Amino acid sequence: MGELVERKKPPVATVPRDNEGELIARITKAFAVPRLNLGQSRVPPRGWIGDDAAVIRGDGKKDWVVSCDFFLEGVHFLPDGRTPAKAIGYKALTRATSDLAAMGAQPRYFLLSLALPALRTGTWLEGFLAGLRRATQELGMALIGGDTTKKRDVAISITVIGEVWRGRELYRSGAKPGDLIYVSGTLGRAGLGLELMFRGLGGRQGMSGLLRRHLYPSIRTELGMWLATHRVASAMMDLSDGLSTDLRRLCAASKVGAKVWADWVPQVRIPDGVRKLRGMARLSAERLALDGGEDYELLFCVPPERVAKLRAAPGFSSIRQVGEIRSGTDAIIVGSDGERRELVAKGWDPFRRLQRR
Amino acid sequence: MGELVERKKPPVATVPRDNEGELIARITKAFAVPRLNLGQSRVPPRGWIGDDAAVIRGDGKKDWVVSCDFFLEGVHFLPDGRTPAKAIGYKALTRATSDLAAMGAQPRYFLLSLALPALRTGTWLEGFLAGLRRATQELGMALIGGDTTKKRDVAISITVIGEVWRGRELYRSGAKPGDLIYVSGTLGRAGLGLELMFRGLGGRQGMSGLLRRHLYPSIRTELGMWLATHRVASAMMDLSDGLSTDLRRLCAASKVGAKVWADWVPQVRIPDGVRKLRGMARLSAERLALDGGEDYELLFCVPPERVAKLRAAPGFSSIRQVGEIRSGTDAIIVGSDGERRELVAKGWDPFRRLQRR
Repeated sequence: MGELVERKKPPVATVPRDNEGELIARITKAFAVPRLNLGQSRVPPRGWIGDDAAVIRGDGKKDWVVSCDFFLEGVHFLPDGRTPAKAIGYKALTRATSDLAAMGAQPRYFLLSLALPALRTGTWLEGFLAGLRRATQELGMALIGGDTTKKRDVAISITVIGEVWRGRELYRSGAKPGDLIYVSGTLGRAGLGLELMFRGLGGRQGMSGLLRRHLYPSIRTELGMWLATHRVASAMMDLSDGLSTDLRRLCAASKVGAKVWADWVPQVRIPDGVRKLRGMARLSAERLALDGGEDYELLFCVPPERVAKLRAAPGFSSIRQVGEIRSGTDAIIVGSDGERRELVAKGWDPFRRLQRR
Repeated sequence: MGELVERKKPPVATVPRDNEGELIARITKAFAVPRLNLGQSRVPPRGWIGDDAAVIRGDGKKDWVVSCDFFLEGVHFLPDGRTPAKAIGYKALTRATSDLAAMGAQPRYFLLSLALPALRTGTWLEGFLAGLRRATQELGMALIGGDTTKKRDVAISITVIGEVWRGRELYRSGAKPGDLIYVSGTLGRAGLGLELMFRGLGGRQGMSGLLRRHLYPSIRTELGMWLATHRVASAMMDLSDGLSTDLRRLCAASKVGAKVWADWVPQVRIPDGVRKLRGMARLSAERLALDGGEDYELLFCVPPERVAKLRAAPGFSSIRQVGEIRSGTDAIIVGSDGERRELVAKGWDPFRRLQRR
């Protein structure tokens, strides 16, 4: 989210010195020692911080996959009731659960931590719970615990728990040179919805369909489970922050490079009617698709010898190859003009972008 | 926390219509249906919302116990750096892990969701991580995942995961009439520290010892595990919100009443030097002990025939009987004057109290 329309860069002084990646690296480093103190029969999780979720190995045939996500007013959704309560409830769970889909896990349980102002305990809370309940039912999950408190703005933290057959989970780190890179669905749809919301155009006639992916995202649980269980993918993650950012993360975790063809990336179609709206004329479908974020589609790599198997995947028709994994560390994108450019991570990073929102 | 000095009640108009208990009940009710859709070989957790943590049954000999807790600036700790960053890091994990101790589980892993302003990513974050790391080492836990984002105030959500031998976990709901009620430790020590902090007296000479329990709470992991593993206790929870509030919750969950003797409750000693400080003269040790909250001691019930076993408990010398479970639903307290009064829940409730903080 963020740099979707070509705008001037913010002045340097407003750019904080940390970004999310560095912050995670610092936290990871600070806790490097206690990890080694673990062990016994239970191995420390392989995925750990930096992957979409952590894997907890029990003494049975299945492992648990756990992830937690903030969903904060003014950070992840618009303040002052501009994002509908029902959408907040729905999206809070689906976006968190996307991290389970990204590991190939079957969603099971979740915990809800909810902080809200007293004024939001009436109809707002009813709407929130209705949306959350709908997502719970669609995903086949159960609420098993949580925490509530009062706060001047709404803060939501959701912990999701899924299960996976031992050793079948997928990490970001498994990609090898020669693997083909795939994405599910059409990219940039959620980003288009967000741009409409930012400009206060969400209430206009005919916009609701365009907002849907932003407010009520779908996630690829079935596809993720299938790719993991059938050992088809070598690496996987979900597209939460935009292909340009997330693919670079996958490459870094796998210690590989990548080449993407811009024309192959399934881009959102921006309707002519939207182009005519205030501030939307220069909106770039390619930028939305590469940097938009919040699509919650899957990004995964498949070794060439397993590509034929993909035909049996659920939702196969919505899967597109967008590039290939290469040796080295360069991530490049080949434009429709044949020009090779560096794939620059321009997706959502709370520590780089928030001052612009 | 809150009504520790006898003060006038806040005007009715500022009291929000919801309190935490009602809010939890509403959320629980909203999710009653999807629970029934679960099943297969994995049973829905018995504890569920309202207990300290949820129990997740795997296919092995041990179960996982999971809980999540918010720790929010301006709600759970003082804003604007008045609570030291190191204490925030330490306390964030210990207080969350107390919910595992309350179930008798062995702490194993945690996930950290951290939202903070860019200005806090320097020395503040270093202090926070140092405190968190100390708690991690003391508790023998490992950080396995999390989420970071930017926000104008600090918001922390911690998910803790522990393990317990199948069927040995303790719930709030197991108390029976005739059971003896015990607490560990001395109650009101954290509350005394908080009162000093509220009044800006924390920096005074000789106060640091009195602040310790507020800033760096100890939890009773070993005792909790022992009581569960040896099947000594019938019901257990941790004292996070004050005995008057938490014992009523245990009684409600167990559908029983209780009788407490005020003289038996191990009360914090308020030093004479503290009495002389501004605003502290009328501070009541009994109110601190009953309503102070955040002691993170254990509250548990033991059937008479198992009381003899207690002598072998770790930290036995710090355990005190404070009352007994009775039939009915009344919770009463017998004062030092022999007078019987209702035990009124006056402990920490974010939805009742925040306007006073």
